[in-house]
Amino acid sequence: MTDFFKGIPAITYEGPDSDNDFAFRHYNPDEVVMGKTLKDHLRFAAAYWHSFAWPGGDPFGGQTFDRPWFGDSMDAARMKADAAFEMFQILNVPYFCFHDADVRPEGNSFAENTRNLEEIVEYFAAKMEATGVKLLWGTANLFSHRRFMAGAATNPDPDVFAFSAATIKTCMDATMKLGGENYVLWGGREGYETLLNTDMGRERAQAGRMLQMVVDYKHKMGFKGAILIEPKPQEPTKHQYDYDVATVYGFLKEFGLEGEVKMNIEQGHAILAGHSFEHELAMARELGIFGSIDMNRNDYQSGWDTDQFPNNVPEMALAYYEVLRAGGFTTGGTNFDAKLRRQSLDAEDLILAHVGGMDACAAGLKAAAAMLEDGKLEAARDARYAGWDTEAGQALLSSDLDAITAKVMAEGINPAPRSGRQERLENLVNRYL
Amino acid sequence: MTDFFKGIPAITYEGPDSDNDFAFRHYNPDEVVMGKTLKDHLRFAAAYWHSFAWPGGDPFGGQTFDRPWFGDSMDAARMKADAAFEMFQILNVPYFCFHDADVRPEGNSFAENTRNLEEIVEYFAAKMEATGVKLLWGTANLFSHRRFMAGAATNPDPDVFAFSAATIKTCMDATMKLGGENYVLWGGREGYETLLNTDMGRERAQAGRMLQMVVDYKHKMGFKGAILIEPKPQEPTKHQYDYDVATVYGFLKEFGLEGEVKMNIEQGHAILAGHSFEHELAMARELGIFGSIDMNRNDYQSGWDTDQFPNNVPEMALAYYEVLRAGGFTTGGTNFDAKLRRQSLDAEDLILAHVGGMDACAAGLKAAAAMLEDGKLEAARDARYAGWDTEAGQALLSSDLDAITAKVMAEGINPAPRSGRQERLENLVNRYL
Amino acid sequence: MTDFFKGIPAITYEGPDSDNDFAFRHYNPDEVVMGKTLKDHLRFAAAYWHSFAWPGGDPFGGQTFDRPWFGDSMDAARMKADAAFEMFQILNVPYFCFHDADVRPEGNSFAENTRNLEEIVEYFAAKMEATGVKLLWGTANLFSHRRFMAGAATNPDPDVFAFSAATIKTCMDATMKLGGENYVLWGGREGYETLLNTDMGRERAQAGRMLQMVVDYKHKMGFKGAILIEPKPQEPTKHQYDYDVATVYGFLKEFGLEGEVKMNIEQGHAILAGHSFEHELAMARELGIFGSIDMNRNDYQSGWDTDQFPNNVPEMALAYYEVLRAGGFTTGGTNFDAKLRRQSLDAEDLILAHVGGMDACAAGLKAAAAMLEDGKLEAARDARYAGWDTEAGQALLSSDLDAITAKVMAEGINPAPRSGRQERLENLVNRYL
Amino acid sequence: MTDFFKGIPAITYEGPDSDNDFAFRHYNPDEVVMGKTLKDHLRFAAAYWHSFAWPGGDPFGGQTFDRPWFGDSMDAARMKADAAFEMFQILNVPYFCFHDADVRPEGNSFAENTRNLEEIVEYFAAKMEATGVKLLWGTANLFSHRRFMAGAATNPDPDVFAFSAATIKTCMDATMKLGGENYVLWGGREGYETLLNTDMGRERAQAGRMLQMVVDYKHKMGFKGAILIEPKPQEPTKHQYDYDVATVYGFLKEFGLEGEVKMNIEQGHAILAGHSFEHELAMARELGIFGSIDMNRNDYQSGWDTDQFPNNVPEMALAYYEVLRAGGFTTGGTNFDAKLRRQSLDAEDLILAHVGGMDACAAGLKAAAAMLEDGKLEAARDARYAGWDTEAGQALLSSDLDAITAKVMAEGINPAPRSGRQERLENLVNRYL
Ligand SMILES: [Co+2]
Ligand SMILES: [Co+2]
Ligand SMILES: [Co+2]
Ligand SMILES: [Co+2]
Ligand SMILES: [Co+2]
Ligand SMILES: [Co+2]
Ligand SMILES: [Co+2]
Ligand SMILES: [Co+2]
Repeated sequence: MTDFFKGIPAITYEGPDSDNDFAFRHYNPDEVVMGKTLKDHLRFAAAYWHSFAWPGGDPFGGQTFDRPWFGDSMDAARMKADAAFEMFQILNVPYFCFHDADVRPEGNSFAENTRNLEEIVEYFAAKMEATGVKLLWGTANLFSHRRFMAGAATNPDPDVFAFSAATIKTCMDATMKLGGENYVLWGGREGYETLLNTDMGRERAQAGRMLQMVVDYKHKMGFKGAILIEPKPQEPTKHQYDYDVATVYGFLKEFGLEGEVKMNIEQGHAILAGHSFEHELAMARELGIFGSIDMNRNDYQSGWDTDQFPNNVPEMALAYYEVLRAGGFTTGGTNFDAKLRRQSLDAEDLILAHVGGMDACAAGLKAAAAMLEDGKLEAARDARYAGWDTEAGQALLSSDLDAITAKVMAEGINPAPRSGRQERLENLVNRYL
Repeated sequence: MTDFFKGIPAITYEGPDSDNDFAFRHYNPDEVVMGKTLKDHLRFAAAYWHSFAWPGGDPFGGQTFDRPWFGDSMDAARMKADAAFEMFQILNVPYFCFHDADVRPEGNSFAENTRNLEEIVEYFAAKMEATGVKLLWGTANLFSHRRFMAGAATNPDPDVFAFSAATIKTCMDATMKLGGENYVLWGGREGYETLLNTDMGRERAQAGRMLQMVVDYKHKMGFKGAILIEPKPQEPTKHQYDYDVATVYGFLKEFGLEGEVKMNIEQGHAILAGHSFEHELAMARELGIFGSIDMNRNDYQSGWDTDQFPNNVPEMALAYYEVLRAGGFTTGGTNFDAKLRRQSLDAEDLILAHVGGMDACAAGLKAAAAMLEDGKLEAARDARYAGWDTEAGQALLSSDLDAITAKVMAEGINPAPRSGRQERLENLVNRYL
Repeated sequence: MTDFFKGIPAITYEGPDSDNDFAFRHYNPDEVVMGKTLKDHLRFAAAYWHSFAWPGGDPFGGQTFDRPWFGDSMDAARMKADAAFEMFQILNVPYFCFHDADVRPEGNSFAENTRNLEEIVEYFAAKMEATGVKLLWGTANLFSHRRFMAGAATNPDPDVFAFSAATIKTCMDATMKLGGENYVLWGGREGYETLLNTDMGRERAQAGRMLQMVVDYKHKMGFKGAILIEPKPQEPTKHQYDYDVATVYGFLKEFGLEGEVKMNIEQGHAILAGHSFEHELAMARELGIFGSIDMNRNDYQSGWDTDQFPNNVPEMALAYYEVLRAGGFTTGGTNFDAKLRRQSLDAEDLILAHVGGMDACAAGLKAAAAMLEDGKLEAARDARYAGWDTEAGQALLSSDLDAITAKVMAEGINPAPRSGRQERLENLVNRYL
Repeated sequence: MTDFFKGIPAITYEGPDSDNDFAFRHYNPDEVVMGKTLKDHLRFAAAYWHSFAWPGGDPFGGQTFDRPWFGDSMDAARMKADAAFEMFQILNVPYFCFHDADVRPEGNSFAENTRNLEEIVEYFAAKMEATGVKLLWGTANLFSHRRFMAGAATNPDPDVFAFSAATIKTCMDATMKLGGENYVLWGGREGYETLLNTDMGRERAQAGRMLQMVVDYKHKMGFKGAILIEPKPQEPTKHQYDYDVATVYGFLKEFGLEGEVKMNIEQGHAILAGHSFEHELAMARELGIFGSIDMNRNDYQSGWDTDQFPNNVPEMALAYYEVLRAGGFTTGGTNFDAKLRRQSLDAEDLILAHVGGMDACAAGLKAAAAMLEDGKLEAARDARYAGWDTEAGQALLSSDLDAITAKVMAEGINPAPRSGRQERLENLVNRYL
C-alpha cells in the first residue's frame, strides 16, 4: 500500500445533484440501460502508460510529474504497480491496459526484458486475483526505444523485425497469462519520415506478414480474445500505414486478414485523420471490424494528439450511439488512453480526471441509449431510404446501365430532391442530452 | 474561328533563356528523355470545365469572367467548343477532358440532355479530326445539378441512382465515340453532410453496385480504356467515400474490382486528405492501381480545393519521380484540373496559366528522369533495405513468432539503429533541379 | 402575407419536456437570469442574407432552394421582406441584420442601387413599426459583385474605393434611418490572393483611411450605435487583413481608432483563425473592444466556413461565460449568421434551424450564468494568481531586472510549480450543463 | 579538438556542377550580389540547441542521438562547445545563437545557473576570439524546466516572474559580453492550456511589463543590438500570446514598445499561424518591425513544428525577396533553428543538413536579387496601383463619405475590374529560379 493517493476516498455514485468532486454524478455501475448495466456497457479501462509511466514532458520541456515510483528498477516497477492497482480500486474501473515498457524496466537485452516482464506479470496476476481488476488488453511498445526509430515490422533492418516479433510474442504471452480479452497493435513507427529513403512496397509487405504471424500465434495458442489494430494517421511519423479505419480495412483485405482483426478506435486519431469519432466508429461497424475504443479527445485547435480526458457529452453521445448500433462491446471496452495535462501535478488530478471522464461517458451512453430506444432518429433514417426497400428499388440494383437508361427514357424519370432535414435531426439529438 | 484569343500566337519552345511570355522555356514536345519524347511522357490535357464553363464565382461572390460563349443554348455550346479547340491548338496540348455538363446546355429531361450531348459530340468529332486533338477522358457531372444534392449512386432516392446510371451510360458512349482513352468517376456528392441522416451501409453498397455496372458496360462495349476513380476526402460534402487512394483500394477490394479500376490522382486532393501528392502516387503504384494525374496544386494555407495551376518545380519533380517509377503513363496523362484565379480575367491569362503549368511539368519531369537515370537515390534506398535481400532476411518472413523468438534469444539479437540520412537525400534531390 | 410558412405556428416556450418540434424547450424570453430577461441577455437577431438571399449553392453545385421571392425586381424584394418579417414573428426574434445586396435588386449604377435601397428601407420601416422587430445592425456587401473582386477599400483602383465609400454611406444612412443599434464592416475581399501583385502597405493604409471616414461620418451624423469590425482570417481570399481580434486591435491602434471600433466575433471565424470562440471573446474583452457575436458554428472537420446553426451547448456555455464576464451585450447581440445546409429545402427547416439554435443559446447562457453566480470557477482563478495581489507581487511589477536579480540571489528564490488543475475545472464546468 | 567530426573536411564552394556532398554548390561567401557579398547578405548562424543539446526525442520516443558530450557537467559543456565551434568552422558560418540552457548544466539554484553560465561564457569568448565566429543572438530558455510549466513572465506565481527576470538579465549580460548583435525572446510558455484557469488580462500585462524591463535594461547597459520577439501561435501551449507578427505588433502598440522591439520570424511558425513565410516577412516590413529570420521549414502535412532544414528554393526565393525589399538584414541574419530528423544519427548528417540549407538559401537569395534587380515584378505591382498616384487618387484619401458619395453620383463612377494577372506573375517568378 503506497501513500500516493492518501486521503482520496473510493469514488461512488452520488447522483447528479452531488457537489462532491470525488463522486460520480452519472456513472452508477449497476444502473441498467437497454438490458445491461452501465458497468457492462462501458467496460471502463485505465491505461498504465499515461497515468503511471509518462513523466509530463512535451517537445519543449521535460518532466513535471514527481512520482515516487519513477526509476528504472524492479522495485520501482512494483511500487508503480501498487499505485496503479490502488487507483483502479479507487475508481472502481473493472479493467486496465498496458504495454510491456510501461510496467517493467528496460533491460540490456531481449532476454532481460523478457525476464523483467515475466516477473511483473506474476506480480500483476496476484494483484488482479486480489482486487478483481481484469485486463482489457495488452500490447507491446515498439516505438519508444531508439531501436524502433525506423519502425518495428516495417524496419529496413530485419533484426529489428525479429526483435519486434519476439517482443510481441512475449506481450501476447503476458496478455494470455493475465486473461486479457484483447491484444492491441498500434504502429506508431510503422510509417515513414520521408519517401526518399522508404520502400513502401517492402514495408507494407513486412507489416502484412507480421500481422499474419500474430494471427497464427493467436490460433496456435488458442487465444479467444480479439486482435485489434489502432489506426492513427501520423505522429510520431509523417505518415503511418494504419492511417484510419478505411485504410486498415484495405490493408486487411490485401493480406486476407479482414476476418481476423478488428479496430481499436481513438477519438483523437479520428480527428487527426480528418474525420469525426463517430465516422470512424460507423465505418468500422459497416465494414464488420468494430472492436474497442480509446475514449480520449483531441483539442480541435491542435495539430497533434493531445490525448485529453473527454468531457463534451454531446459528442460522446454520438460516439456511443454508433457503439450501440454496432451491438455494443463484446471483447472491447472504453479505454482512457488519456493523459493529464502536464501542469496537473497532483494525485487528486489523476483521480478527478478519470472521474470526470467516466461520468461524461456514462452521461453520453445514457443519452445514446435513450435516442436509440426512442427510435425517432432511426425511423427518420429509414424513411429517407424507403424507396430502396420497394421492389423497384431492389430491382434497380440488379439491373445494368443499358436497361436503366431505357427505363429512365421510357418513364421520363426526373427526380425532385427532398429535404435532408439535418437541423431538425440535430435538434432531435439535443433532446436526449 | 472566334476572336477570343485574337493576337495570341501559337506557343512554341524557345528554350530557357527566352523572355517571351508566350513561349515554352522547358517544354520541348520533341525532346527525348529516357527514350520517349516529352510529349509522350507528359500527355498533357486541358480541362474543359474550369477553362470554359466556370464563371469565376466563389462562395462569397459571383461571376467575374465575361466570356462570349456564356449562355445556355446549343449555339453558345458550339462557340465554346470553337474557343476551346483554339486554345488546345495555341497550347499544342495533345488531349482534352470534359464532363457532359461542361459541353452541352442543361435540358429539361434526360432525353433532352442526351440529345444535346450527342449533338455536341458530333461537333467535337469533327474538330478532333481537323485538329488532331484527342480525348484523354470523359466523365459525367453528377454533382452540380440540384437533383444530385444528396449524391448520385449513393442517393437515398432510387430515381436519382437511375438518372445517374443513365447519364453515365451516355457519357461513356460519348467517350467511346470520341476515342477517349479513359473514363473517370469523381464522386463529389458520394458522401454525407451528417451521419444523422445517412445510411452508410446502403450508400457504400449502392456505390459498389454502380461501379460494377460501369465495369460491366465497359466490357460489354469492348472499351479498351481505363476506368479511373478520382479520390477526394471532402468538399463539397463533409466526407466523401473516395477519401484517398488507400480508402478507394479497400473499397475496390470489398467489391472485387481492384483489377478493373485505377486511380486519377490530384495534387490538391492529396493535400486535403493529409498526404503529399507523391505519397498518393507511390501508394497507387504499390497497390497496382496507378492511372493518371490531375496536375493542379492546392494552396497549403487554404482548407479548400483551390485547383491552381502548378508552379513549384521541386514538388513536381518528386511527383513525376513516382510516375516514372510506376512505369510512366499508359492510358493516363497530365490533366490540368486547374482554374484561373477569379481575378485573372483576360484571354491572355488563360493561355499563360497553361504555359506556366506545362513548362513547370516539363522541368519537373526532366529533373525526375535525371534523378532516376543517375540512380543514386534508388541505390541508397536499396542499400538501406539490403538486409532483407539476404537469405536470413528472406527466411525471417516465412518464419513464425515462436521460431523468431528462439532465434532472438539464442543469438542475442539487439539491433543498433542506422542513420536514415534524410537531409543527405534531400540535398541529393536538389542537385537535379 | 406570403404563404411560404403556411401551417407553421408561432414558436413559444413549452419547457424541457416538450416533444413539440415547433416549441422552445429552453428559451423562455421572459425568464430572468442574473437580473435580466433572457430576451435582453441574448438579443437574438436573424440574418437576412443566408435565410432569404442565399440560393443554396456551393463551389460544386448551384441553387437548391426554390423560393417564391427569388428574382431581381423590386416586387421580389418586397415579397422577400414579407417572408422575412413573417419568420421574425414566428420565431419571436427581436432583431434582424442585413446587407444592402440582400434586400434590394442590384442596379446598373450606384444611383440605381441607392434608389432601390431607399425604397426597400421605407418598406422595412413600415414593417418594423407594425411588428416591433428592430435592426441590430446593417452593413454593406462589398464582396459579391465583380467590381469588388480585388477588394473594396483596399482595391488597386481608386474608383472602387470611391464606389465602396459611397455604398457604405448609403448603408449607414439606411441603418440610422431604421434605428439600427450597430453598423458592421466585414472585409471579405480586404486581403489578397497573392503577395506578388499586392502592395500591402498601400492597402492597409487605404483600409485605415476608410475606417476613419466611417467613424467621422458616424460622429457627424450623431449615430449612437457602435461601429463593429468582424474579423475573419481567410476565405474568400487567401489572407484577410482583419485576421482575428488581436490583429484588428493592432490595426486599430496603428490608426488611432481603438476607442471607436468594437468587434463582431463569429465562432466559425475564430475556428478558421486557429482559436476557440471563447478565446476571441476573452481577447476582445481584455482589449476593451468586445461588441457583438455571430453565433454560428463551423464544422471542425472542414477547412472552410460552414456557417452552421449552433447546437453544442457545452461549447456555447463557455462562449456566453466570456460574454457575461465582459458585462453582457450593450449595443450588441446574438446574430445567427447561419445558413441551412443546402439539402434542407423546406420552410420548416428554416424555422427549426433557428428554433434549435435559439434553444441551445438559451441553455448555454443559463449554464454560463449559473457558473458565474456560483463563483467557484472565478474563485479558483483568483486563488491561482493570489500571489500577485500581495504587496511583494505588486512591487515586483514596478521593479527592474537588476533589482529583481539581486532579490532572487539574496532570497534564493527557486519556485516550485503548483498544479493547474485543468481536469478538475473541466469537471466543474460540466456540473452546470 | 574533439574527434566527433573526424574525417569531415571544411566545406568550400565548388560551384553548381560539383557532385561532392561536402561542398557548396551555390553558397560562395565572397560572391557579390546587389553590391554586397553573400556572406553579408545571408549572415548565417547555426543554432546551439538543436544541433548540440537535443537528444533526438519526440512525444513517442526518447533519445536517438549518441553524442560524447551528453551529460550534465561543466566538462561535458566544454566538450560540447569544442564540437560546436568545430562545426562552425567546418561550415564557415559567421555566427551562432544559443540559450543559457543549451550551453551550461542546470544547477540547483539561480546562483549556480549563473556561475555555470558565466564560466561557459568565458570559454566561448576565447573560442570566438580564436575562430572569428560571432554571436548573432543570445536568449534565455524559459520553457524547458518544470518551474516554467505555467509560463515565465505570465506565470501565476510571482516568484517565477522573478526567477525569469533574473535569468533574462544574466542572458542579456552574457550576450553583451560576447558582443551579440541581438537579444531574442521566444515565449514558448507565455500562453495557456485552458482559459478556465487563466487570467488573460493579468498575464498579458505581466508580459508587457517584463518586456519593458528588458528594454530598460538594454538602454541602461548601452546595448546597441536589437531586442527581437519570435512569434509562434501555439505549441507547446494551446495558445501563445505572441501568435504572429500582426498580433505582436498590437501587443507592442498596447505597451508603447513598437519602436523598441523587432521580429525574429520563423518559417515554421508562420505556417502554424496560417500564413506563408513571405506574408509574415512582408507584414513585419510594412509595420516597421522586421529584424531577423529563423530559416527552418515546417512540413505542411504536420500540425506541429518540425523545424526542418530548408530545401525548397522557390519558396526561399520568395522569402528572401521580402527580406531584400525590407532593405536586407542590419543586426539580423539567417539562423537555422533546425534540427536533424531523429533518424539522422551521424556527424555527417549534421554537417550535410547545414550544407544543404546554406546552399538553398544562397540559391534563393540570388534568385530574389535577380528578380528585384530586373524590376519586372515591382513594375507590375506599381502599374496595378497607378491610379492611386494620380492627384484624384490622392485627393480621395483625404476626402470624406459625403463628398465621395456626391462625386460617385455626379460622375456615375462604375468601375470595371481589371485582371490581377496572378498566373502571369507566377510564371515570371519561375524565370529567375
Ligand atoms: Co492518441
Ligand atoms: Co490510443
Ligand atoms: Co480539385
Ligand atoms: Co481533379
Ligand atoms: Co462565417
Ligand atoms: Co459572420
Ligand atoms: Co520552430
Ligand atoms: Co525559431
